[in-house]
Amino acid sequence: MTFRASILTLYPDMFPGPLGHSLAGKALARGDWTCEPVNIRDFATDKHANVDDTPAGGGAGMVLRADVLGRAIDAVSPEGDPRPRLLMSPRGRTLDQEFVRELVERDGAVIVCGRFEGVDQRVIDGRGLQEVSIGDYILSGGEIAALTLLDAVVRLLPGVMGNAVSGTYESFENGLLEHPHYTRPAEWEGREIPQILTSGNHAKINEWRHEQALALTLKRRPDLLDDETSE
Amino acid sequence: MTFRASILTLYPDMFPGPLGHSLAGKALARGDWTCEPVNIRDFATDKHANVDDTPAGGGAGMVLRADVLGRAIDAVSPEGDPRPRLLMSPRGRTLDQEFVRELVERDGAVIVCGRFEGVDQRVIDGRGLQEVSIGDYILSGGEIAALTLLDAVVRLLPGVMGNAVSGTYESFENGLLEHPHYTRPAEWEGREIPQILTSGNHAKINEWRHEQALALTLKRRPDLLDDETSE
Repeated sequence: MTFRASILTLYPDMFPGPLGHSLAGKALARGDWTCEPVNIRDFATDKHANVDDTPAGGGAGMVLRADVLGRAIDAVSPEGDPRPRLLMSPRGRTLDQEFVRELVERDGAVIVCGRFEGVDQRVIDGRGLQEVSIGDYILSGGEIAALTLLDAVVRLLPGVMGNAVSGTYESFENGLLEHPHYTRPAEWEGREIPQILTSGNHAKINEWRHEQALALTLKRRPDLLDDETSE
Repeated sequence: MTFRASILTLYPDMFPGPLGHSLAGKALARGDWTCEPVNIRDFATDKHANVDDTPAGGGAGMVLRADVLGRAIDAVSPEGDPRPRLLMSPRGRTLDQEFVRELVERDGAVIVCGRFEGVDQRVIDGRGLQEVSIGDYILSGGEIAALTLLDAVVRLLPGVMGNAVSGTYESFENGLLEHPHYTRPAEWEGREIPQILTSGNHAKINEWRHEQALALTLKRRPDLLDDETSE
């Protein structure tokens, strides 16, 4: 089954962009997912193709109009479309690996990329847009946030990751940050690979890796260990 | 002053990518920042241009070699380079707006994009790489994370945002999620702009916006309100 991503944006040329390369690019070429960027500006009706206007009540910046964005959404995702309608926004639910796994189960996603100061609240309410944030920082628009979300989703689509084992031992998938990695050369600038890793004793190696992962998580992200209920 | 970004990656064609458009693209054209993607593969020395090898101790995936990446870093960022050396990695310090503001104050950044299973720990230690995560999810590599970090940084460089006021009332900048926005038309699908916003009473409007921001933050992100010490 193909995951269908429709992206509503003022910068359709940004897509697939980096997702046209590497793992996601191969998956796109294979048809594991589709990427349909749609220009919101095509749904403006005045002669200047205006998509935004000044905020009601005053203040800085411009606000994306409900009528223009509403028409764009209706064209791309008519009533009955089973796909979730997402709005990339710092006000939204914070993306995490659990949320990514939920999205992978869907038929695709309609992703609205905000720009300017924000989006008229009435179209968020009227079209049931779910606000999604990729983190507690501000971007110049929703486009790079959409690319981030899609990269996280696409790599989990069936058949995309060459090695199905890769993934299960990664950061967050088992509630811990990942243990350190080493590879050849055996010695580099006087630094050696920890002896245990070349011992051939797989039980001991797994134990060491788990201890390392636990110690790193305790040091850097104790919040992940507190958060037993979410996994 | 120009913010100099050097990006070590196996996919240099991904840069500047989406950052070549819009706000960041204009800033790049103006010389407010520079974007130097460097191919790690150019620093491989064997005939197959190998950059990775199997993990010591076994397991899935491949690990980026310390010797190859070490040479790439030394070429781009010799000793004495004042720029921070970042490694995009889910194990790192989580990016937030405070961290973004710290980075804006620097001369630029050297950003290493991981791929495969991970990076040999010895080059992280030996070259003092600071691990940075953009969120608790797994991407196919560090490239889109680097684009995200750079977008957040570039928009805060002096002169980049047209309207300097925009920014101070945004989500996170005052510890709250942003209040809802409205713009013309006054009525859309039977939905009206809240009367207070068309009252012309700016004190009341500011009060209403603050209440709305507070209510939204309480509902969606009570953790931001607990976290008094971080702001």
